[in-house]
Amino acid sequence: MKYCFGVDIGGTTVKMGLFEETGAILEKWEIPTNTLAEGKAILPDIAFSLVGKIEEKKLEKEDILGIGVGVPAPVTAEGVVNGSANLGWKYKEVKKEMEELTGLKAFIGNDANVAALGEMWKGGGAGEKNMIMVTLGTGVGGGVIIDGKMLVGCNGAGGEIGHICVNYEEKDCCGCGNRGCLEQYASATGIVRLAKQKLETEKRETMLNKEKITAKDVFDAVKAGDEVADEIAVSFGKYLGYGLANLAAVVNPAVFVIGGGVSKAGEVLLSYIEKPYKERAFFADKNVRFVLAQLGNDAGICGAVKLVLDERGK
Amino acid sequence: MKYCFGVDIGGTTVKMGLFEETGAILEKWEIPTNTLAEGKAILPDIAFSLVGKIEEKKLEKEDILGIGVGVPAPVTAEGVVNGSANLGWKYKEVKKEMEELTGLKAFIGNDANVAALGEMWKGGGAGEKNMIMVTLGTGVGGGVIIDGKMLVGCNGAGGEIGHICVNYEEKDCCGCGNRGCLEQYASATGIVRLAKQKLETEKRETMLNKEKITAKDVFDAVKAGDEVADEIAVSFGKYLGYGLANLAAVVNPAVFVIGGGVSKAGEVLLSYIEKPYKERAFFADKNVRFVLAQLGNDAGICGAVKLVLDERGK
Repeated sequence: MKYCFGVDIGGTTVKMGLFEETGAILEKWEIPTNTLAEGKAILPDIAFSLVGKIEEKKLEKEDILGIGVGVPAPVTAEGVVNGSANLGWKYKEVKKEMEELTGLKAFIGNDANVAALGEMWKGGGAGEKNMIMVTLGTGVGGGVIIDGKMLVGCNGAGGEIGHICVNYEEKDCCGCGNRGCLEQYASATGIVRLAKQKLETEKRETMLNKEKITAKDVFDAVKAGDEVADEIAVSFGKYLGYGLANLAAVVNPAVFVIGGGVSKAGEVLLSYIEKPYKERAFFADKNVRFVLAQLGNDAGICGAVKLVLDERGK
Repeated sequence: MKYCFGVDIGGTTVKMGLFEETGAILEKWEIPTNTLAEGKAILPDIAFSLVGKIEEKKLEKEDILGIGVGVPAPVTAEGVVNGSANLGWKYKEVKKEMEELTGLKAFIGNDANVAALGEMWKGGGAGEKNMIMVTLGTGVGGGVIIDGKMLVGCNGAGGEIGHICVNYEEKDCCGCGNRGCLEQYASATGIVRLAKQKLETEKRETMLNKEKITAKDVFDAVKAGDEVADEIAVSFGKYLGYGLANLAAVVNPAVFVIGGGVSKAGEVLLSYIEKPYKERAFFADKNVRFVLAQLGNDAGICGAVKLVLDERGK
């Protein structure tokens, strides 16, 4: 039996998993992310934990196919990061450093792209090779899978779908400095923003309280039949559905996988996205399926392992 | 020496080329496209012409690596077309039929995607592996190259960049049935449409005549310093530049290659696109280069040959 490690580096914790090459997860664990001193301990801490696991499990190094790593930053095709705000990293040769620390082959990708790869392998996109994953969290992230491979781009910034413009009339700025980015309407924060704008002038009765509101509150109210919440969800879905229609014209995916905290609202969320999507999609893309992500927090470690399995021969 | 054939099937003529495997073009020729009877003669005519060329040049079949073919329709990864309005084809197994007719390996792609591959290989995108080609002709076509390969998509409709929406307020319909498609503003037809709208209410003196105007007239007037024409070009550039900024956020290309009839306006065209592009591009994509296509009508046959060289080992 051969094995792989999957590693998903986040700003607070590093998730790790030991997998059989078949894809079965043998064990999962976490260590804290030490972001002090420009995050210089992060890779050594990971290596120490992996080497410890190898000893604990009495594995032979030659039976380990490699380590896949997802990083919250653009990653070049050479496994180099030019800076990660969440980790404190400046320029870092992640692949090289990881390989030197462990003596194992390492394969590095952007965390959102790697999570998309995981969902394609064992989650919502299983069976497909052309897929767009949309992660609706604090921001809007994404990963694009083309013919089974992550779209990385020329400097690792492929799949930044939170920053396509969906409203050229927007006055407020996005965190990225532009105006009208998808993230301003479809992230958890964006939904709250839409809700507050609506409630500012709303006269009808509603369960929503504009002083204290979350994206979850909006979709809970939708499920309870709240008319105002429904209209907020319609507005959210229109921006997202229209944005995804534009992505589909370029990527021609078989499936959209919707994940992230907002997706915990469940199937109801998909209906709000699909309707405006179909209105605007190019005819060849009308029948793209919409599904919820299935792997939750394991998408990153799963995708990291898939990266090892796909790339190790090259 | 090994050889390849490149074939670019258009609605009126089929362009063909005999190449050395180094990429050198030995000979180019054309035959008419016979669209009668659902285009059933097209592939036999091509095969007949290729076999004739093999005999004429006294080539050995085993020295021919294959035939690359660009088709004006979506083409699946299996080389199947589900209909081409320009050729009269319904469902057609192009790869299979071509291989049976010639006894040679055949590799099939969408014509716009194949042309993009050609420009990456030997034209405006030479040296790059992540590129978007934009063809501004009667319509707006495109081809997206990711890590050196054409983005084909799940049913061959990848890279339909003429049909991303760039104006959600548009009232007029695009040929595809949607409203606000990039093609409605950035094609030769779209530029004429923008010009006519402008001239409808324009009081200033201008070289442009709204009864008889082409996209070339607009850019000729721009070069002559015509203020009204300049404003039409600004409007064109804004729609296109904003649209390309959205594409870049997803694809993270190194270069945009601008081709098609409208691109004959030359470098002046690029300046009108680049300025609004930079205003809207995600920060990681601000420095994408804009260049004119270089291969003209040879892009298709060149790309078709590149397809053979890339795919034949698989």
